[in-house]
Amino acid sequence: MDIEIITIGDEILTGFNIDTNSAFISERLTSAGFNVRYISSVGDSLDAMEEAFKLALSRAKIIITTGGLGPTDDDMTKRAVVKVFKRNLVFHDDILEDLKQRFAARGLEMPAINQNQALLPQGASFFPNKGGSALGICIAESGRVFISLPGVPFEMRQMIDDEVLPYLKGLNKGKPIKVVAIRTTGVMESKLAEIIKADLHLGQGVKLAYLPSPKGVTLRVLATGEDQDQADERAQKLVNYLEKVAGKHIYGREEDTLEGVVGRLLKDNDKTISVAESCTGGQLGMTLTSVSGSSAYFVGGVLAYSNEVKVNQLDVPAETIEQHGAVSEETALAMATGCRNRLGTDYALSITGIAGPEGGTPEKPVGLTYIGLASAHNTFAREFNLGNDRDINRQRAVFAALEILRREILDI
Amino acid sequence: MDIEIITIGDEILTGFNIDTNSAFISERLTSAGFNVRYISSVGDSLDAMEEAFKLALSRAKIIITTGGLGPTDDDMTKRAVVKVFKRNLVFHDDILEDLKQRFAARGLEMPAINQNQALLPQGASFFPNKGGSALGICIAESGRVFISLPGVPFEMRQMIDDEVLPYLKGLNKGKPIKVVAIRTTGVMESKLAEIIKADLHLGQGVKLAYLPSPKGVTLRVLATGEDQDQADERAQKLVNYLEKVAGKHIYGREEDTLEGVVGRLLKDNDKTISVAESCTGGQLGMTLTSVSGSSAYFVGGVLAYSNEVKVNQLDVPAETIEQHGAVSEETALAMATGCRNRLGTDYALSITGIAGPEGGTPEKPVGLTYIGLASAHNTFAREFNLGNDRDINRQRAVFAALEILRREILDI
Repeated sequence: MDIEIITIGDEILTGFNIDTNSAFISERLTSAGFNVRYISSVGDSLDAMEEAFKLALSRAKIIITTGGLGPTDDDMTKRAVVKVFKRNLVFHDDILEDLKQRFAARGLEMPAINQNQALLPQGASFFPNKGGSALGICIAESGRVFISLPGVPFEMRQMIDDEVLPYLKGLNKGKPIKVVAIRTTGVMESKLAEIIKADLHLGQGVKLAYLPSPKGVTLRVLATGEDQDQADERAQKLVNYLEKVAGKHIYGREEDTLEGVVGRLLKDNDKTISVAESCTGGQLGMTLTSVSGSSAYFVGGVLAYSNEVKVNQLDVPAETIEQHGAVSEETALAMATGCRNRLGTDYALSITGIAGPEGGTPEKPVGLTYIGLASAHNTFAREFNLGNDRDINRQRAVFAALEILRREILDI
Repeated sequence: MDIEIITIGDEILTGFNIDTNSAFISERLTSAGFNVRYISSVGDSLDAMEEAFKLALSRAKIIITTGGLGPTDDDMTKRAVVKVFKRNLVFHDDILEDLKQRFAARGLEMPAINQNQALLPQGASFFPNKGGSALGICIAESGRVFISLPGVPFEMRQMIDDEVLPYLKGLNKGKPIKVVAIRTTGVMESKLAEIIKADLHLGQGVKLAYLPSPKGVTLRVLATGEDQDQADERAQKLVNYLEKVAGKHIYGREEDTLEGVVGRLLKDNDKTISVAESCTGGQLGMTLTSVSGSSAYFVGGVLAYSNEVKVNQLDVPAETIEQHGAVSEETALAMATGCRNRLGTDYALSITGIAGPEGGTPEKPVGLTYIGLASAHNTFAREFNLGNDRDINRQRAVFAALEILRREILDI
């Protein structure tokens, strides 16, 4: 049963809202074994909606729309639905009464405009909305199911989980499916593919996808089966293989982030961290502290952009910078050591590099970066060549630093 | 010229990745005066892509796809493109050579699988990709323009700004048009509309749109005319009015960023800046140094996440923290003053707040943030309530701090 999701709203087509509704619905439906075949977005226009709804009815069995169910004039989904299905809007006294009572329970008078919410397509069934005034609408006709939900994310999410999914499962059991996301970093997609392909035998019903991002490559395993056990088994077999051949590059699963994993490792080992950043200007600290609860292990840091700050706030010897340059293994080492001493942490990470686009020389090109780590047992710095885009190589430097720390803590 | 955006990838249809690419492209194109009419998503399947591409070619003049251009087997966009356009894939020696050199420059050997990246549709033109190995593809045929970009957001974004937008602007040979984007910050859309609407008279052929985003509200002026001079004049008249009534909220034009504008002001006035960050953990420093050439004015900073760092590295009196708390006007003031003294800069900005989701109390709720500024003439701190989402209120704190500095330098 092919499914199409249509998200409605001018704010999506102008790019001022990121459409998170379709991703939520897709994830829920896919995890439940349904096949989302189409996702599309339309603006707040009757013609555009009519066109999109008709196209969807011609190519999908189940259509789910979000948005355009509010009480104001620019909410036009119901008008488009009755136009496409050639029905009338019917007024429901009981729904209006219920709405009034809900407003009264909150000590409020219902604004008159909400009367529109009791106007619903003839012959439709409804999904209740615990969080708002717009009901979900469901029309089943000629072997198609057309469902319209409000666009407010928390209302829509609750309705998908509590109402729509049970309803769809009742219509037809989807094919059992298992999806596993494996997160890697520090290895390029093409290299990872080489490592994995060497001895890869994809079993029946199993797919492997490489999903690269600046943070690393995610391996997505998708397995189907005759029953859930078979799907789980097929996925697990591939996961085991991936862990065997690419284990040291894998930092986590599903929604794990590298900064979250590193944070957990620090917390579990009762260790603290500080950072000394030059070219990244605070991005490493920002990334580490993006994790809620990071104050348990993140103490602070020094943004040593100028050489004076490196010398005065991190005790990097001025001669080190003179002799080897600010972007050098020696300076990275001294920054990490100085930071660890000053801030009294178990670990300190340092980053110094040429972020570009200016500042490169033949000997020290844009992208040349040194990352240092200091701990009680071990102090070292590594050289990286991270490419010539400023934003990208700062991002890469941050992730390389986190990965160095992860491997140091795990001793791998 | 109606535009359709198609994002490609199983990870979108399974809800595993939220599609941020279409929102980015829509925002950029809408700001430039283009009309995005359709957004759709398809999975990594030849049939689905062929169907989607044909539909798009039947209803839009310009089609932009993202995704499916990687070197591995599950990347099938090029195959779908040549199928739809009935062309062959042609091997380009020069592109392969260039790729090899880019790997070599980073001290790496190019994995064999990347040879696929030199295989491109016959007769297509290409957009270079600074961040990755997949070129952008552009086919112009029968009055339609079909552009395929990689799905990796940072690669795609750079290509949209540097290559695709200039290309599309060159194509637009319709009615003379002038589009001006005016960037504001620190004022809500509804308030800005009130200020502007009070005395607004939109002339003939002139439109004004409010485009809100987390960084502020962009005002888009779109004017048409019989000739270019008339369009320019009409736009300029509205721009003059907007500057008169909302001038102090306006920080820039077109692709200006607040951090870029602040950087230019510092540089032009030969001033330096340092930062003392608690809850933002480096995000202010990172934002200031995202501007190329920022070493001319950004000296460095201290990430004072723990109270010990505030005391030891920024000379905040321990009693100030004891008496007023780490999140207080007094601590923000002491952080800014201490930072300015230690790092010897003209200005110092400080941020201390409760980022959440934990750590709030009835007196000091999540989102409470103090931003301090110290200069030779003026030292103050302001209180903000920035909402209860950790990422959003850190982002808002950074923008509020930059705006405080901008107004301080300009004395407005």
